[in-house]
Amino acid sequence: MKAQFTIGLDYGTNSVRALIVNVANGAEIAAAVWTYAHGTQGVILSRDPNLARQHPADYIKGAEITIKQALATAKKSVKGFNADQVIGIGVDTTGSTPLPVDANGQPLAFSKKFASNPAAMAWLWKDHAGVNEAAEITALAKKLRPQYLAKCGGTYSSEWFWSKVLKCLRVAPEVFNAAYSWIELSDFVPAALTGTEHPDKFIAGVCAAGHKAMWNAKWGGYPDEAFLSKLNPKLAQLRKRLTTRVHSIDRPVGGLTPAWAKKTGLAAGIPVAVGAFDAHLGAVGSGVAPGTLVKIIGTSTCDIAIAANTKKLADVPGLCGIVDGSVLPGYFGLEAGQSAVGDLFNWLVNYIQPVGPEAGSHEELTKGALKLQPGESGLLALDWNNGNRTILVDQRLTGLLVGQTLYTTPAEIFRALIEATAFGALTIINRFEEYGVKISSVVNCGGIAEKSPLVMQIYADVTGRPMKVSRSAQTCALGSAIAAAVVAGAHKDYATAIKRMTGLKPTIYKPNAKAHATYQELYALYKQLHDAFGTKDGGGNLYGVMKKLIEIRSRVRR
Amino acid sequence: MKAQFTIGLDYGTNSVRALIVNVANGAEIAAAVWTYAHGTQGVILSRDPNLARQHPADYIKGAEITIKQALATAKKSVKGFNADQVIGIGVDTTGSTPLPVDANGQPLAFSKKFASNPAAMAWLWKDHAGVNEAAEITALAKKLRPQYLAKCGGTYSSEWFWSKVLKCLRVAPEVFNAAYSWIELSDFVPAALTGTEHPDKFIAGVCAAGHKAMWNAKWGGYPDEAFLSKLNPKLAQLRKRLTTRVHSIDRPVGGLTPAWAKKTGLAAGIPVAVGAFDAHLGAVGSGVAPGTLVKIIGTSTCDIAIAANTKKLADVPGLCGIVDGSVLPGYFGLEAGQSAVGDLFNWLVNYIQPVGPEAGSHEELTKGALKLQPGESGLLALDWNNGNRTILVDQRLTGLLVGQTLYTTPAEIFRALIEATAFGALTIINRFEEYGVKISSVVNCGGIAEKSPLVMQIYADVTGRPMKVSRSAQTCALGSAIAAAVVAGAHKDYATAIKRMTGLKPTIYKPNAKAHATYQELYALYKQLHDAFGTKDGGGNLYGVMKKLIEIRSRVRR
Repeated sequence: MKAQFTIGLDYGTNSVRALIVNVANGAEIAAAVWTYAHGTQGVILSRDPNLARQHPADYIKGAEITIKQALATAKKSVKGFNADQVIGIGVDTTGSTPLPVDANGQPLAFSKKFASNPAAMAWLWKDHAGVNEAAEITALAKKLRPQYLAKCGGTYSSEWFWSKVLKCLRVAPEVFNAAYSWIELSDFVPAALTGTEHPDKFIAGVCAAGHKAMWNAKWGGYPDEAFLSKLNPKLAQLRKRLTTRVHSIDRPVGGLTPAWAKKTGLAAGIPVAVGAFDAHLGAVGSGVAPGTLVKIIGTSTCDIAIAANTKKLADVPGLCGIVDGSVLPGYFGLEAGQSAVGDLFNWLVNYIQPVGPEAGSHEELTKGALKLQPGESGLLALDWNNGNRTILVDQRLTGLLVGQTLYTTPAEIFRALIEATAFGALTIINRFEEYGVKISSVVNCGGIAEKSPLVMQIYADVTGRPMKVSRSAQTCALGSAIAAAVVAGAHKDYATAIKRMTGLKPTIYKPNAKAHATYQELYALYKQLHDAFGTKDGGGNLYGVMKKLIEIRSRVRR
Repeated sequence: MKAQFTIGLDYGTNSVRALIVNVANGAEIAAAVWTYAHGTQGVILSRDPNLARQHPADYIKGAEITIKQALATAKKSVKGFNADQVIGIGVDTTGSTPLPVDANGQPLAFSKKFASNPAAMAWLWKDHAGVNEAAEITALAKKLRPQYLAKCGGTYSSEWFWSKVLKCLRVAPEVFNAAYSWIELSDFVPAALTGTEHPDKFIAGVCAAGHKAMWNAKWGGYPDEAFLSKLNPKLAQLRKRLTTRVHSIDRPVGGLTPAWAKKTGLAAGIPVAVGAFDAHLGAVGSGVAPGTLVKIIGTSTCDIAIAANTKKLADVPGLCGIVDGSVLPGYFGLEAGQSAVGDLFNWLVNYIQPVGPEAGSHEELTKGALKLQPGESGLLALDWNNGNRTILVDQRLTGLLVGQTLYTTPAEIFRALIEATAFGALTIINRFEEYGVKISSVVNCGGIAEKSPLVMQIYADVTGRPMKVSRSAQTCALGSAIAAAVVAGAHKDYATAIKRMTGLKPTIYKPNAKAHATYQELYALYKQLHDAFGTKDGGGNLYGVMKKLIEIRSRVRR
């Protein structure tokens, strides 16, 4: 039998990537990347710093360009490769990135009337225009439907579906009124590729619905009409037009249309899997399994674990989300994260810009930090320069550094910041385990995991656990390709597909016992600071300090 | 009558300065500086980083060279000036800087036998060899003589007289046994100039004795023999040989010897005042008076106030010292201080070395910091990178910075560090006032006070008090010249001499009401952190955090 391949389409913030993968062994034979054409690096901005939109035309064009280019590369690099060996497509995207569509499921931005109206475009994950709406939704749910909040860490975010839809209703009613429905980017692309955009056929992924739109089978899907009515009766009306077909990634939404087959050279009818978010399919591409925590480490982190949905799972306070089937069918998908990891190191390098010996660049700082023993600098930091996503779920927190002398160096601060993110990571692992989700293996992926042995060793020493690194450098696209392989029937289930198509790098960072002992002492101090500044009952009356500083700052800057 | 002048001799850490001053108006007509010949910039070091000594020969040579050179300059620059117009000499020095002397009052280091023995030289103020001895003295006094500690802030320092003498007894008994007595540098120089070194004539200043050797008229002078015996019986023996003539700066120790007159060109017999420490005579040169706090701002600060000794004065917890007559006769001299001010700013510039816009130098950082409103950065710092001298008297404290975001800049940190030292300054002022020492005027001197309007304005805004700056750039030497003028009879008392010979710069930094209001909010937060990390009962259980970090650091570095 000839080798079989699938394509993973990975829609990031600035570009889309197509990755062609051998379903037998996960070999990545070709890839192509295209930066979106609209806006700045694909993001449409305005004078309002909260606004971040994307034009849906870029999503369509991006699929065509990258699939064609990846196929061309595969033909050149793999002898005898033919596009008809591609048996399926999977899709992952940023999210929550919802867009308004008409009665045929077509983006409003595709119509002349709304072609250049930002409210009719896709509201990118990092659009925070709905910050007041998020607070309103949180407050209402706290009062009327605490169960809604329990599954998303206690706070509904401005980055999420209902905040954005409600904001649109208020600031651009002409768009809201013209929209038949709103759909997530991760559902829009599979629907477009398969011609299932029409509401009669449209299928939504449980990943986006469950993590961002408070969808849960337990309470009958999306938030109930009575609740939505209190926000605005028009939201209750909209709910009626949202699809009731909400599925996990183990089924296709349909087959590739003849039109798409023609323009790409792929075979018509090959299945396209239900879409999901990049981090969730990144976890799949990293080999997620019960007991395995996948850490996708970039500017921030997304930490993904799964737990069998046959057992009862308590709500885990402070987690970003707990959704049945959001990562893999048959499992609760659990999402946690740290608001700044790479961004924290970048802050020191790019904003403070320390120079001198063992400073000036990530490489030089790393050189200096490598010479230090745990605890040697006397420094300790909190990793909250961008707030805390898990377990405190509080954006009104800030960074802290303690222990400076008159001789403290940039390399010492650099190491303290790395250690702080490691302590943050340990806090998340502990939270999982405290609520019965045992973590027996940690797999890291992303640029920092690949490039910084220093960071990985510190993570191993702080957590007392081996740090593994995912073999693939494109775990999100690989995860999409795995989803495609499963829905195309190349593997009988996800467990088999993951076993065959993912792997680890040979180097595993093992904890050093002596370093771990010192870090346990330091972690006890970190936890003291964490609780004192981050919780109301954590000892001391310091809970208000960071918040008051932010309040003064906001007032003065106004 | 021809104009009259006095000479102030100011012995610093690296050099000695002679300043010739017109007694009628404080005009500084000539100055000369000489860097000590021995060691590194005048300091003899060893492999032990705690050791810092000076060769007493430098003190003698330095007086001769600088007096002659200053007189030569005066002749050139002031028409008709003649050395016989100089009517007295005053001396200030670093301290506690004790040196062992023989039965004739001559430094042991002047004898062949001990000429190159560091233990026989002057133990410079920053010599910390006696760190264990200091802890031992503190512990014993806590148990047996708490009154001794109450006058020096609760902790006896390794920088002080008895720690050094006891250390010498233990590590260099041949030196200790050869020494008839030990005297402070501030007493040695006046004795040498007047030929009163012999124990029969020798006079000590109350400033050094009271602040550094636990001398107090209330308990009969130096610590009693029973107490000293517990440390070592030889200390009790030494006590018998210490002078009982301990005086304030309102009297001369004697007249200039013919030999000194001959080699300098000055008139024989002109009075030399009792010596004192640089900061104390710096306060005199800055116009100290009841209700006036003089802040001598350098790498660290020394804060000096006086209070009438006719009233009862409570012990002020956390002050470095409270000594009757140590600054001016008839007043308690009160000494406080901050362990790092200029050093804190230097740390950012020299160790972190931030570059980029509005960074790279003090000047650029100042430019950036000037653009910020109080509270705008959202940052708050503790000024403890070098511990806290007043009011916590705790070297086992470290720096803290809170409020960082991913966009925090070096100029914002620079301003936060300045503000932290201002909050530290306010804490000292408040402590004075809480114990009945009213501060109605603040006079600053030293390089930072002269060169940084930013720092002075922040101090005004934080404290809500006008910041005045001393007219003289050499307040210590000027203070010595004032002492000379008083003992020479040019003025009837210190109040008159200070009025005539000191002054302020025309610019007074007035507090801005709006900035002060914001700083009051920020100070409340500073105080919360101060108490939480710096006191056992200050809220939270964070008192141990900095100490534990230091403990781990020390262990790891070993």
